[in-house]
Amino acid sequence: MTATQSGTEAFEREPVALTERITSDGSSAWPVEPGRYRLVVARACPWANRSVIVRRLLGLEPVLSMGIAGPLHDERSWRFHNDPDNRDPVLGIEYLREAYEKAHPGFDGGVTVPTVVEVATGKAVTNNFQDLTLDLSTQWRAYHRDGAPDLYPEARRAEIDEINESVYDDVNNGVYKCGFAKGQGAYERAYRALFARLDALSERLETQRYLVGDTITEADIRLWVTLVRFDAAYHGHFKCNRQKLTEMPVLWAYARDLFQTPGFGDTIDFEQIKQHYYGVHAEINPTGIVPLGPDPRGWLTPHGREELGGRPFGDGTPPGPPPEGERVPPLA
Amino acid sequence: MTATQSGTEAFEREPVALTERITSDGSSAWPVEPGRYRLVVARACPWANRSVIVRRLLGLEPVLSMGIAGPLHDERSWRFHNDPDNRDPVLGIEYLREAYEKAHPGFDGGVTVPTVVEVATGKAVTNNFQDLTLDLSTQWRAYHRDGAPDLYPEARRAEIDEINESVYDDVNNGVYKCGFAKGQGAYERAYRALFARLDALSERLETQRYLVGDTITEADIRLWVTLVRFDAAYHGHFKCNRQKLTEMPVLWAYARDLFQTPGFGDTIDFEQIKQHYYGVHAEINPTGIVPLGPDPRGWLTPHGREELGGRPFGDGTPPGPPPEGERVPPLA
Repeated sequence: MTATQSGTEAFEREPVALTERITSDGSSAWPVEPGRYRLVVARACPWANRSVIVRRLLGLEPVLSMGIAGPLHDERSWRFHNDPDNRDPVLGIEYLREAYEKAHPGFDGGVTVPTVVEVATGKAVTNNFQDLTLDLSTQWRAYHRDGAPDLYPEARRAEIDEINESVYDDVNNGVYKCGFAKGQGAYERAYRALFARLDALSERLETQRYLVGDTITEADIRLWVTLVRFDAAYHGHFKCNRQKLTEMPVLWAYARDLFQTPGFGDTIDFEQIKQHYYGVHAEINPTGIVPLGPDPRGWLTPHGREELGGRPFGDGTPPGPPPEGERVPPLA
Repeated sequence: MTATQSGTEAFEREPVALTERITSDGSSAWPVEPGRYRLVVARACPWANRSVIVRRLLGLEPVLSMGIAGPLHDERSWRFHNDPDNRDPVLGIEYLREAYEKAHPGFDGGVTVPTVVEVATGKAVTNNFQDLTLDLSTQWRAYHRDGAPDLYPEARRAEIDEINESVYDDVNNGVYKCGFAKGQGAYERAYRALFARLDALSERLETQRYLVGDTITEADIRLWVTLVRFDAAYHGHFKCNRQKLTEMPVLWAYARDLFQTPGFGDTIDFEQIKQHYYGVHAEINPTGIVPLGPDPRGWLTPHGREELGGRPFGDGTPPGPPPEGERVPPLA
């Protein structure tokens, strides 16, 4: 296979369309303001899951509401098919694309979650998922709950950024490179990079509870949203099948530890995850049949990671339970 | 979903085209005769694997030669694409279908492995896989090696037949019913029947080394050919994903025990298995990409089943190594 061929076979993620940021310092057109914005997510999506977790951990629910698209987007966009009348109850729209079109008439780019929408105008502000969670940590600080953890501590940012970058390339986006490869060579390169990175992360996590320092940081959140979907979606559907997560003892214990931490497992709906991946990607699952497995109950088994020490929330505290209306079903 | 709809969604295996039997008692047109027939198999195929194992265990290699089709059949039939010049070296044909057409001009039915072909005429005699292995045990007895085990002991036949029937419906064919279901309902019924049966088999095998009596029988062979393919093909490709085999401790130990028994693991080529399933079923894997996983090295780990007692070959002995030319590659 020539370099040119393999280049075209590899999956390339489209850049996000709206790169705006919401800031507290006047450096953008969008000021932080309680009640002004709505965060639109989908339970299925790992990129959205980051922001759902960070919003929970920081206690931003009272100032930043959340709309939840269903798992089955179509070629037009994510849509609110799980809401009454198939409409987001605050924005009143059926398709998330409507918010993009309101902001940018004639918009024909990619519509992704998370998207932040300005409630009063119904205009999409940003789908810039890479900056969004960091901005929730740094720009929205005035509105964090009492006891909110510091997920992006200044002294650790270089280390967090470095891990995030390799985790993005090889793991978060790496599983998509496996699943959406157009040829055997591109798939195999992505698979090898993915498992080499997972092996390195496993080694790192063997003796420390969290990726950076002794508390939960943005780096853990970004790795975890992929790990939690691994066996339900990526192992079979994306052919990331050297082992299941359940067969990688360190990463499996690490992932269970976070699952059982308030703000993580309580954001996960495995049924929606499976419905999305298996139902939407007709080019790799033309039957649309959604697997009944895997059995998710293992997520609640003891993980033993407390022995490594660590202070999950540092000097802070865990968040309370999710607000009514944002609760996920219990594990089957 | 109505009963009618679900009926049409379920996978139905086509009956074999050639139901002839080769017998020693003159009850059929095809007498047992050394050197007269060639057994055509494919490493990938579980139905063929049965006959490969039985031929090995009984030491029939000198009297019944074996042709090995490659894993990638096309719409015409299985073909000898791994042989020099893409032809079976004895029969001289490229496609197994040629042997069916020679026997039955204008043949347009299904061509499957195993098929027994008469060497002198090149005519396909039978692809009757359900009777074939039993006939190797009972009709070919005069040509069994010294120390050949009795795989179908008279006193146990009712019990073996009964197990074989439920294993066929729910496991051997059950994985295909999962993978080739045309609708969610048909898939879910097949999945539940499969795992209910595996649970029952696991319970049975918890306290006894083999399925029937204390020796290896036809019942073990038929169950094993599906178990050995479970993680490489059925778990992901056919969505049989409640657990991997490696996560079902009794069945996994049972399957490893047999894998490490001469005549079983030495018939297995995991690469050909994966190439076949992922490469041939474009309707469920349109990209044709073949997964790199799972890591097969676990098959050689200790299984501990000797503690249950049992006499693998009864009063007989294990077979020697496979003949040159019939050896499979070592595990990666």
